[in-house]
Amino acid sequence: MALMVQKFGGTSIGSIDLLRHVARIICDTHSQGHQIIVVASAMGGETDRLVALAKEVDADYSGREFDALLATGEQCSSALLTIALIKQGVPAVSMTGTQAGICTDAVHSKARITYVASEKIQYYLKQAKVVVVAGFQGADEAGNITTLGRGGSDTTAVAIAAALQCDECQIYTDVDGIYTTDPRLVPQARRLKRITFEEILEMASLGSKVLQIRAVELAGKYNVPLRVLSTFDKGEGTLISYEENSMEDARISGIAFNQDEAQLTVRGVPDRPGVAASILAPISDANIEVDMIVQNVGSRDGIADFTFTVHRRDYTNALGILEDTAKALGAGKVRGNDKIVKISLVGVGMRSHAGVASKMFSALAKAGIDIRMISTSEIKISVVVAEGDMKAAVQVLHQAFELEKDTQA
Amino acid sequence: MALMVQKFGGTSIGSIDLLRHVARIICDTHSQGHQIIVVASAMGGETDRLVALAKEVDADYSGREFDALLATGEQCSSALLTIALIKQGVPAVSMTGTQAGICTDAVHSKARITYVASEKIQYYLKQAKVVVVAGFQGADEAGNITTLGRGGSDTTAVAIAAALQCDECQIYTDVDGIYTTDPRLVPQARRLKRITFEEILEMASLGSKVLQIRAVELAGKYNVPLRVLSTFDKGEGTLISYEENSMEDARISGIAFNQDEAQLTVRGVPDRPGVAASILAPISDANIEVDMIVQNVGSRDGIADFTFTVHRRDYTNALGILEDTAKALGAGKVRGNDKIVKISLVGVGMRSHAGVASKMFSALAKAGIDIRMISTSEIKISVVVAEGDMKAAVQVLHQAFELEKDTQA
Repeated sequence: MALMVQKFGGTSIGSIDLLRHVARIICDTHSQGHQIIVVASAMGGETDRLVALAKEVDADYSGREFDALLATGEQCSSALLTIALIKQGVPAVSMTGTQAGICTDAVHSKARITYVASEKIQYYLKQAKVVVVAGFQGADEAGNITTLGRGGSDTTAVAIAAALQCDECQIYTDVDGIYTTDPRLVPQARRLKRITFEEILEMASLGSKVLQIRAVELAGKYNVPLRVLSTFDKGEGTLISYEENSMEDARISGIAFNQDEAQLTVRGVPDRPGVAASILAPISDANIEVDMIVQNVGSRDGIADFTFTVHRRDYTNALGILEDTAKALGAGKVRGNDKIVKISLVGVGMRSHAGVASKMFSALAKAGIDIRMISTSEIKISVVVAEGDMKAAVQVLHQAFELEKDTQA
Repeated sequence: MALMVQKFGGTSIGSIDLLRHVARIICDTHSQGHQIIVVASAMGGETDRLVALAKEVDADYSGREFDALLATGEQCSSALLTIALIKQGVPAVSMTGTQAGICTDAVHSKARITYVASEKIQYYLKQAKVVVVAGFQGADEAGNITTLGRGGSDTTAVAIAAALQCDECQIYTDVDGIYTTDPRLVPQARRLKRITFEEILEMASLGSKVLQIRAVELAGKYNVPLRVLSTFDKGEGTLISYEENSMEDARISGIAFNQDEAQLTVRGVPDRPGVAASILAPISDANIEVDMIVQNVGSRDGIADFTFTVHRRDYTNALGILEDTAKALGAGKVRGNDKIVKISLVGVGMRSHAGVASKMFSALAKAGIDIRMISTSEIKISVVVAEGDMKAAVQVLHQAFELEKDTQA
């Protein structure tokens, strides 16, 4: 008998028929003798409906009342799901975030969970009931209703799993797991049986479509095994945990890519202490976030080239700022390019395998793909290539690292 | 500066435009320097929508989860109304029944309020805020969400007014007050400026269209002045209180009527102790409620006629039971009539004025209306007449007692 959390998103319970289907999934797990806490999102479209009502009253309002309004979406769906469970013969009880003891700070609409006072949940579990908790919501110390921000139901699920030391936190969604890369780009992309917390975080741009990064971080922090599963297809999904891969081979889990970035370069920067800060300070003062940063020695001694990437929406702004900075520093020309993509190879195996980088670069070279920027971390190698090369680059890398083959145990 | 409750029903907040209109009413009261607790029903149609969702999942379900579901209707409307108030510059805060300290028993879907823990409401009032409380709901001792049954928002309003010793509890609705009788029947019917709790209870069949009887009883018990007002027309409405009428004349407040009853008579009943019980016990055993009961001496000594009324839906059933009883008692013929109406003259003034009854009977006689049954209470005289005589009878009585004339201060 395991103790587990099963979380269902809005698309999983977008209609009463789907709600009944979800109840059957829970019913199956229950009949196997497991103890279950269910976390329910609002039914698909309901949150948007409530937001539209509030906007009709006051387009600019945000704060306490907004949270009280939005929280009803999950309260409705969890009550309805509980009725469906009871109808299918499963003893069940619903709880709002407040009732379930989801304690948060007082930052409305993006509250953070401070702790879970789980006595009430445990009380019902002891009565052999399935406990259905309204996701996305909690209460601050004064008892005001708070919400955790969009997608906060994943965080609710992980927080409860952590507080109750559950064996597994299952996130049911509309995809059947995490893939080596986007299957729309590479038809050979393969579902991963397992992936580590570090890898899923590095693969943010892939993972974010399936999981809230915040929930993954929380799961990693409290070592809660997370499993991504499909509500619509049977299967074991993808397990996210700290389990180390036992194979000798360098393990590459997947290929992530990001099409939202733009690249900026300033050439001929005097190579002296503090110059990087001089270049980036005006950028961050303008609230522009910088992703990759690369500095390499230029063609002459004491002179360097400095390159970084920003979000595409900030490109024009950043370019203007950088030109002023270059002038002030007595640096050379500023160049920019917003037709680039970042492609990242992710895998814990690359830590001890220097060969991964050279294999990656030679595969791209063989395909005639020009690498414009490189940056590495412990378990990731990112390259920037021209936008037009993206599809070919991902396909070439997927093949070179044989990601279509299942090498997992 | 007065402390008051303003309650708005579902038709008063059936759309966002109406919600804004209601916010202006509250805003006006607030600008006069009053402290206000608002009680909001669900927006018109919302409760029906939620009930339909639950029925789609399980047509037979009732209980705890149903209450958790339905309570979201008032939580939504009170949050939205609060946003509208803030938009209009009125500091305001919304509260669920649980947050507002509306403590109830654990009878789901028809819970009764046990007490109001009003500290939190008072905390916000001290901050000079309008407090918007979700009507119709509370929480039992274990923290489970309960609902008070349809129309329970009136009860919430009165309970809060009683707990906080408010100066007035204003019930905003779609009519502008309590009338001397139904204006559709008597065009001269007049809005009453004042009426007593006893009278409004006796006029149930009139008053129930406007107010929940349960809320009136509660207001009477705690001496909370109730005022019925229109959300859509300006006016002072009707004040319901214990205030005694200061006029010398017999005061008749209004004429109520009930078209849902049927009359049953058993003739020639042996006039001995316990015979009334023998006749009524089998009726009540069949869960049939009896309204008027009249026993009068028959044509021979030691023999009486016994007449009572029941709801029309129970007529056939009651008739069959009564025939069996009559046989067993050795009584005479049983007669029944389901084409009758009960007309009641209501007014605290009739207590000390014996002339009211004779004036009533002679007015009806002059109009050629046959009285088939009479029953009196402290402040009410009810007669049963043929269904076809109803309209004429109400009009004749309205005129005879000059109810169209405003004799109130």
